Amino acid sequence: MAINHVLPITIYYEDTDFSGVVYHANFLKYFERSREEMLGIESLVSLYRDRGLGFVVHRVEMTFKAPAIHGDRLEVRTYGRKESDYRLSFDQSVWRIQGNVLLVQGQVQLVTIDRAGQLVPVPRDVADRFPSTG
Amino acid sequence: MAINHVLPITIYYEDTDFSGVVYHANFLKYFERSREEMLGIESLVSLYRDRGLGFVVHRVEMTFKAPAIHGDRLEVRTYGRKESDYRLSFDQSVWRIQGNVLLVQGQVQLVTIDRAGQLVPVPRDVADRFPSTG
Amino acid sequence: MAINHVLPITIYYEDTDFSGVVYHANFLKYFERSREEMLGIESLVSLYRDRGLGFVVHRVEMTFKAPAIHGDRLEVRTYGRKESDYRLSFDQSVWRIQGNVLLVQGQVQLVTIDRAGQLVPVPRDVADRFPSTG
Amino acid sequence: MAINHVLPITIYYEDTDFSGVVYHANFLKYFERSREEMLGIESLVSLYRDRGLGFVVHRVEMTFKAPAIHGDRLEVRTYGRKESDYRLSFDQSVWRIQGNVLLVQGQVQLVTIDRAGQLVPVPRDVADRFPSTG
Repeated sequence: MAINHVLPITIYYEDTDFSGVVYHANFLKYFERSREEMLGIESLVSLYRDRGLGFVVHRVEMTFKAPAIHGDRLEVRTYGRKESDYRLSFDQSVWRIQGNVLLVQGQVQLVTIDRAGQLVPVPRDVADRFPSTG
Repeated sequence: MAINHVLPITIYYEDTDFSGVVYHANFLKYFERSREEMLGIESLVSLYRDRGLGFVVHRVEMTFKAPAIHGDRLEVRTYGRKESDYRLSFDQSVWRIQGNVLLVQGQVQLVTIDRAGQLVPVPRDVADRFPSTG
Repeated sequence: MAINHVLPITIYYEDTDFSGVVYHANFLKYFERSREEMLGIESLVSLYRDRGLGFVVHRVEMTFKAPAIHGDRLEVRTYGRKESDYRLSFDQSVWRIQGNVLLVQGQVQLVTIDRAGQLVPVPRDVADRFPSTG
Repeated sequence: MAINHVLPITIYYEDTDFSGVVYHANFLKYFERSREEMLGIESLVSLYRDRGLGFVVHRVEMTFKAPAIHGDRLEVRTYGRKESDYRLSFDQSVWRIQGNVLLVQGQVQLVTIDRAGQLVPVPRDVADRFPSTG
């Protein structure tokens, strides 16, 4: 089963800052768009509506290698795995398609919370889609 | 009673875009920060929590006169009035403090909705804080 | 020649606010993404790089009819026209695809500035792509 | 000389997402506002204008401990140090003032680039304001 996921991103004016390059915090948004597409937005919506469960970011690491600029066509590449019963881990990177240049490399850990904000195990049907670490 | 409200804004990297000036949509955020401070954030929080009521933007008009840049110290100036039982109207403008230069001029209309998203009259205790139009 | 343009938009977590619906200022971003796609991002990049010209928003009007929520699949529909030698005008609206529901209706006016920030006529090759008003 | 810096932050509608809490990427913005205030926005502006130098984020780590909600009054606490001739490192955390609750803890590394985007040493006058690591 394909766990790897690729999301194309176009860089608009809104994405850039004063220095002419993409504002660093925006890469976290691209990472998240990719995870949502990977998990399935409809699944996320019904998971919350029907079971009161949601995923939240627990930890982030990102290293910036090269800048992205207005008009760039990028790709977010994501590989997910089950790190424990309570944690999913995603290796995510952003590449400029032209020349296949690595721009940002990172890792994001998600946990699951219920409506009361309490930590619960990752729902089995979601967790089973990911390979275990190690 | 003071209805006029002034909010200072500092322009950070996050506020600017590729062209080196503040991204146009951000001025709507500054307008909103000002309305929240004017109405009182604690009041907004308790209005929603205790009575299930919230304000949403119904209509926006904005004209851009001059750009704001990184490091600018700005002021949002707001004047609110009750336009009808269902509508509050805010004349809002953004000025560069140095030189007192008008950058953006706009008008924002708010309506009140309940938890079901239905339109309801502006709560009396809020409406009474504003002068009527005309 | 087709001036009408349609851009699909998916609503991610990043797009929504506290109230569970899309934050009003974000619709200005969707409007802009659509105009960039319509004008052609590569054209915009080379217009700026080679001729030092850029488009900036001069005036915005938006009316909010119904909310968009997480997971919605939307469409931005744009119709552009040349209002004068100095001004392009875009009628833009956002629709929920399911049910074809109008969410936001607006109008955005663009002007052209040079590197010094001075107003100049809309470049002829861009202006000629749009029908004149009236 | 005071290197520690504290910046108060108010949480507005714009800061929250669908789940009612502050969207995780926004904490990177609060971190950055704090670093800009700490370094001095006027200094940053003149450093770029007069010497063509700017700071960019090289690496980020963030752990999320507890959520922030609409209306919260927060504090960003920052401690900076010189990690090498090329790198400044900032320990940054966000606290809810009421109850002194730690919400987010992180570390951000900055490097200096010139107008061509090339890595250069941290300007001496900036570096000298920070203690060295170890």
